[in-house]
Amino acid sequence: MNWAATIAGCPVSLLTDFSASINPLGPPKSVLTAIVNNTSQLTAYPDPTYTELRSHLAKCHHVDPDSILPGNGSAELLTWAGRELAQQKFTYLVTPAFSDYQRALNAFDGKIIPCPLSLDPSKGERAFASTIPILSSPYPQSGLLLNNPHNPTGKLWTKEEILPYLKQFDLVVIDEAFMDFLTPSQEQSLIPLVAEYPNLVILRSLTKFYSLPGLRIGYAIAHSERLQRWQKWRDPWSVNTLAAAATAAAIQDKEFQQQTWDWLTPARSQLFEQLAAIPGLQPLASAVNYLLVYTEMSATQLQEKLLKNYQIVIRDCISFPELGDRYFRLAVRLLAENDRLVEALAAIV
Amino acid sequence: MNWAATIAGCPVSLLTDFSASINPLGPPKSVLTAIVNNTSQLTAYPDPTYTELRSHLAKCHHVDPDSILPGNGSAELLTWAGRELAQQKFTYLVTPAFSDYQRALNAFDGKIIPCPLSLDPSKGERAFASTIPILSSPYPQSGLLLNNPHNPTGKLWTKEEILPYLKQFDLVVIDEAFMDFLTPSQEQSLIPLVAEYPNLVILRSLTKFYSLPGLRIGYAIAHSERLQRWQKWRDPWSVNTLAAAATAAAIQDKEFQQQTWDWLTPARSQLFEQLAAIPGLQPLASAVNYLLVYTEMSATQLQEKLLKNYQIVIRDCISFPELGDRYFRLAVRLLAENDRLVEALAAIV
Repeated sequence: MNWAATIAGCPVSLLTDFSASINPLGPPKSVLTAIVNNTSQLTAYPDPTYTELRSHLAKCHHVDPDSILPGNGSAELLTWAGRELAQQKFTYLVTPAFSDYQRALNAFDGKIIPCPLSLDPSKGERAFASTIPILSSPYPQSGLLLNNPHNPTGKLWTKEEILPYLKQFDLVVIDEAFMDFLTPSQEQSLIPLVAEYPNLVILRSLTKFYSLPGLRIGYAIAHSERLQRWQKWRDPWSVNTLAAAATAAAIQDKEFQQQTWDWLTPARSQLFEQLAAIPGLQPLASAVNYLLVYTEMSATQLQEKLLKNYQIVIRDCISFPELGDRYFRLAVRLLAENDRLVEALAAIV
Repeated sequence: MNWAATIAGCPVSLLTDFSASINPLGPPKSVLTAIVNNTSQLTAYPDPTYTELRSHLAKCHHVDPDSILPGNGSAELLTWAGRELAQQKFTYLVTPAFSDYQRALNAFDGKIIPCPLSLDPSKGERAFASTIPILSSPYPQSGLLLNNPHNPTGKLWTKEEILPYLKQFDLVVIDEAFMDFLTPSQEQSLIPLVAEYPNLVILRSLTKFYSLPGLRIGYAIAHSERLQRWQKWRDPWSVNTLAAAATAAAIQDKEFQQQTWDWLTPARSQLFEQLAAIPGLQPLASAVNYLLVYTEMSATQLQEKLLKNYQIVIRDCISFPELGDRYFRLAVRLLAENDRLVEALAAIV
């Protein structure tokens, strides 16, 4: 955030950050306690089998512990997913997409076929269609890399919408980094299908929901043979002891999970309505903790004004080349912060 | 350590661990303070350029910050070193060797030529010669992977002994995980040669010297172009925030470094002499914080008896197939602990 602080002319600590899609309620106190209580364990190597950690995660997701591999953030696991996707002839990638997907595929010379989300003007001037933009008959020996819910649009595809692709592609990697933001009755995780589909890999992360991007913890759920292969590729101790302890505490913190769901739904609705009421802005419906917003004014100009005059950071979409300068992304934050953002936006656009 | 606790019939916390070669004085208080003080930073992503961390390390080693890449333990960086070594026709590996070297080379189908340390009976019945056991004319397009000081023998090669290989091999990777245990006047690091030799990679770790195996922090020092390539292969945030803060504190803690050097030299000498006085055991001279010991009795039997009767863990050398059942490895620990070990060994052998 140093670039933003420089433009804003203030220390990083005085910025209000709507650019990172991190839960503003976290990290949970239970997690910080677990971290501090486990510093005495740092003198031992982590258990390379991560048996205890996998058992906690398995219980949480009702899967076999052998179908779980914890990683140094889901980004580390994406590297190994990228290596396997690169062994396919092509990887179909729904775009716009998180830039790290390209990194992981390029690292192993993967061939990417971009599948752009199409616009659906019936939903608003620059809103996207909800269908997954993939040919019904992909090339043989191809992989699919999909983000569900989708970043940056906030779209959620149902299990039923994704299911046909499990039969058409040789390898399907679903990044569910934001799925935790959906309640148990809303979520559309494909985790229950892993036992049935050996070609399916799910990536999950604690980064966003538990506000722990600095700790590096994520996990893959997939067929055990595949994960054993990944385990031989990477070093044996990739998850640090504090991240392992934090994970056990986080996934058992039902109170924090409920608080997050209780905060998110009304906060997102209110922010959506406030943004929709500002002429020149059009927020897109979202299932998660961020909103993609179409803007008639240049997003980079808007970003600069918000920084200089209000010390507010938003995410321009320059790293999503398909979106360019007419979209920006906002994290949903606490009500008072969202109000301050809306006031600032109304004054600028 | 659960296997050991099971045999010993006691909780892990009651074991005395001579099997892991970890500094018994650590972790430094300054490091634990840095970790606890930085938990509030976990809500932000680590800086993917790790500019501040690299600047601290660069100052410490008098090199350009661009020639440093921090990693999730040096084991993570070994993965990428393994990928580059595997692109050579062969990798010469001095054996016995840390088993993770094989993992990193196998992960990318590297071809290994083992170079066994030869025995030198003039130094004792089963002691090793001090020359590096590599042909003077290796195959063209080959790499060399060497551990200096060497694990498990504790041998230290001088810069001058290694220098010729920098001219003969296309890629030379030196794992200096234990070099910090040598004082500034004793150490033989090849770091000062990195600027001159683009085919040289040094791996360093904070794990052993600072007793932080659970935190995962190491770094590579090499030509910046090579490190930029590795950076594109791996995910952008591989070093967690707490490990980055701990590193800055650790490498500036001159008092802890001096305490370690002051403890190690006399503690190692005394343990060596005590072991040498036990009939049936022959310790090998070591430059670092562990001793390889030749035993006339089976090392696995010795290990079991130490566990069952004394709750003491030693490292058998089964994972070093060249050594087999006639060697074991001991970490040098505090004087009273070393004495207790020696008493137990004298009673068993």
